[in-house]
Amino acid sequence: MNAVEKLHSISKKNNSLVCVGLDIDPAKLPEHLLSEKNPYLQFNKEIIQATQDLVCAYKPNMAFYESLGREGMILLEETIKLIPDDILIILDGKRNDIGNTANHYAKSLFETLNTDAITINPYLGADSIKPFSNYTDKLSFILCRTSNPSAIDIQDYGPKDKPLYLHVAEKINEWNVHQNLGAVVGATYPEELKEIRHILGEKTPLLIPGIGKQGGDLESTIKHGVNSKSEMAVINSSRGIIYASNKEDYAQAAREATQQLKEAINSYRPKNL
Amino acid sequence: MNAVEKLHSISKKNNSLVCVGLDIDPAKLPEHLLSEKNPYLQFNKEIIQATQDLVCAYKPNMAFYESLGREGMILLEETIKLIPDDILIILDGKRNDIGNTANHYAKSLFETLNTDAITINPYLGADSIKPFSNYTDKLSFILCRTSNPSAIDIQDYGPKDKPLYLHVAEKINEWNVHQNLGAVVGATYPEELKEIRHILGEKTPLLIPGIGKQGGDLESTIKHGVNSKSEMAVINSSRGIIYASNKEDYAQAAREATQQLKEAINSYRPKNL
Repeated sequence: MNAVEKLHSISKKNNSLVCVGLDIDPAKLPEHLLSEKNPYLQFNKEIIQATQDLVCAYKPNMAFYESLGREGMILLEETIKLIPDDILIILDGKRNDIGNTANHYAKSLFETLNTDAITINPYLGADSIKPFSNYTDKLSFILCRTSNPSAIDIQDYGPKDKPLYLHVAEKINEWNVHQNLGAVVGATYPEELKEIRHILGEKTPLLIPGIGKQGGDLESTIKHGVNSKSEMAVINSSRGIIYASNKEDYAQAAREATQQLKEAINSYRPKNL
Repeated sequence: MNAVEKLHSISKKNNSLVCVGLDIDPAKLPEHLLSEKNPYLQFNKEIIQATQDLVCAYKPNMAFYESLGREGMILLEETIKLIPDDILIILDGKRNDIGNTANHYAKSLFETLNTDAITINPYLGADSIKPFSNYTDKLSFILCRTSNPSAIDIQDYGPKDKPLYLHVAEKINEWNVHQNLGAVVGATYPEELKEIRHILGEKTPLLIPGIGKQGGDLESTIKHGVNSKSEMAVINSSRGIIYASNKEDYAQAAREATQQLKEAINSYRPKNL
């Protein structure tokens, strides 16, 4: 089963489009975990155990692990091993480089870290995408429209009727010869999300961050983000779930937040599966 | 001394614009090193010792370290410690993310790994740049025109008289409130290099990869890349130097290749310092 099929399968099995962002943050770790031998791993373990029947994917953002130094990379490896085989793992690193070097990132992410899916940046063009898309059983989400306010600085450049993010969406189609590319589109831009889904069609998965703390509207996100079968959208929430409580009940609180988000999303899916 | 001053100072001291790219590659490591306890660290150590009086900077590309897994991150930390204090260290990771997350990358690169300078991707706009530029004593090179053939896919988008890479150059000026931003411009695009230097003016350092194996023309690179004082350009060579030989004489061969490049560059500098 390739990564796109895996996403499809787990979304059906758990009847969920929810992705939980495993963005560990020293400033937000529940205090009682500090006495544990490996507090962050314990945290991730409990979050995963408490939510694994409610999600389609987990997404560790690499920045949070890298900032812990060498220990962080070990933690990332160990966290990946804790995620059940049938759930999609998206390593969110937004990396890229020229072809020769991108080969090493692809090897690092898909082989050394053994993830199903990744996020990559399109700025360097086709030859920087190919080293990733050549892993035909893996899935690469290309940044198209990011969720932050200053996304407009670069992504809106070009003619009014076809700003850069739409050009990137067209390029994703052009580059998607192995049907293993997706796009990252922020929930904070619902109109742009609609345009991008229109260009990318039925089969391309969208990874959609920006709901919750970032303020993206859930109803329009779901309406515009899914395909005609109400599928192929991965709705990420990080802080809203994993830091729902910073007390001893954090895992249970994360479960409740995930359950609520899952149900809210499903209530907006045009045709509930 | 901040990182821009450090660059200026070491370029003068060693009379050199050469940056050596420490892109360790298992496929190219001299065979006799394989019996060493830590072959890659030994390799980097000998390369640094053999070239440190001839360069202004070293640039480890993070992809090559990451693909070695957790050992690679330790190797990167140890390599950084081997570089003399007065030489600029550029960690080439081409990372970026939205503001909250970019803070963690900035912390990881500037604090945990303790580098002077980095490379970052502009696609996410101003709020993704600020977490890096807020480290006012550090230097962040923003990708503007990359050296690869498919740079044109995204970077040429927009009106013919002002493609995206020129818009990015203007944004770099706008974002450069602490005078600690630079730009990455490939030597493979000399005309674009000329336009970008014109926009960025005198004080902004350019990191210029793409000479040597990638085919960039050295004379036009130097002519267009430096400022009016023949400064503020960092000319990177990786494979052409560190793999000049894969035999026991590799460090001496790297020294000779560096010396030749330094002299060739200096012969093209409009006013030799």
